[in-house]
Amino acid sequence: MIHNILKDKKVLLASASPRRRLIFDLLGIKALVIPTHIDEPTTLELPYIQAIKHAKNKVMAISGKIDEDAVIIGADTVVYLNGMILGKPRSREDATDYLRILSGKTHSVYTGLCVKHCQVIQCDYARSRVTFGELSEQDIEEYIITREPFDKAGAYGVQGFGSQFITRINGCYFNVMGFPVNLFYQLLKGMFQE
Amino acid sequence: MIHNILKDKKVLLASASPRRRLIFDLLGIKALVIPTHIDEPTTLELPYIQAIKHAKNKVMAISGKIDEDAVIIGADTVVYLNGMILGKPRSREDATDYLRILSGKTHSVYTGLCVKHCQVIQCDYARSRVTFGELSEQDIEEYIITREPFDKAGAYGVQGFGSQFITRINGCYFNVMGFPVNLFYQLLKGMFQE
Repeated sequence: MIHNILKDKKVLLASASPRRRLIFDLLGIKALVIPTHIDEPTTLELPYIQAIKHAKNKVMAISGKIDEDAVIIGADTVVYLNGMILGKPRSREDATDYLRILSGKTHSVYTGLCVKHCQVIQCDYARSRVTFGELSEQDIEEYIITREPFDKAGAYGVQGFGSQFITRINGCYFNVMGFPVNLFYQLLKGMFQE
Repeated sequence: MIHNILKDKKVLLASASPRRRLIFDLLGIKALVIPTHIDEPTTLELPYIQAIKHAKNKVMAISGKIDEDAVIIGADTVVYLNGMILGKPRSREDATDYLRILSGKTHSVYTGLCVKHCQVIQCDYARSRVTFGELSEQDIEEYIITREPFDKAGAYGVQGFGSQFITRINGCYFNVMGFPVNLFYQLLKGMFQE
């Protein structure tokens, strides 16, 4: 299990996301959290390629500054629908737009994951499909008042108030929250147990 | 949204489950939690019929003892595979057996939900499909040491250490955790907003 694979290692999480920190707590991983603030401009590349690239950039931003033998973990989550990447909303209007776009539809969430240990770097991604029920204008208004949409890709949180709008997830739930737990376990097993 | 529909009402949650309490906290619902300890024998009925019946029994166990106009909520979760209902394991051996059965397979989780307000009772259920990766004997042993399997139907928790074994969920994630949040929202809208 993950906490046993990592228990004697120095673990660094290159992320500013409180949700990733929460997932590490749930998994019993003791990690030093180092928020990275790198620019993540959206490009025309495929969403999973962007997510992997950003995850790797987060890892590389702190690699070199710390012990060679630390395990450094980076992740980046992208919400994608109809060729559009929905980032973190910068305003109330953005959030309203994003939620109207997601209403009644199924979108994809990609998380790129990157793990570095000594000279080995492993990257991969997970994709989940998330279906929203129809949102009324009242739903959107009441949801924005909770302030939950504002620091989250796609303007919603799957684990809070936003959960009531989601009729179906197909794939890894924790990927939608920002960290694909089963994929992480697979990567670690490949790196440390084979 | 749920917290607005319920905000001026007296809300009672007829459940001993700390996970349901956690979900209520995430949704901003202020509820009085009244654990019910009724016998939930498994029968030969379909799993969702059993789950609904048990959810209703929990509601009825506290109805009559409290204000008529309170909103009483009961839920019951059942893990089902190949015609078998996997309840809470009573021993280490039970837990080992259940986890071996779930390993590498897709099972169903049903949660029956019952909401009562004045003379109106609404019941329904949600079904999610959960896919486990292959568990090694070491995985099972290490997982049992965490003690997480013991108070949970099917001997696993979707939101803790158990998350690393799950490769896919198809349906409502919170249903697997014990409370189908979107279904609850639908029921409440039908009872209070139409």
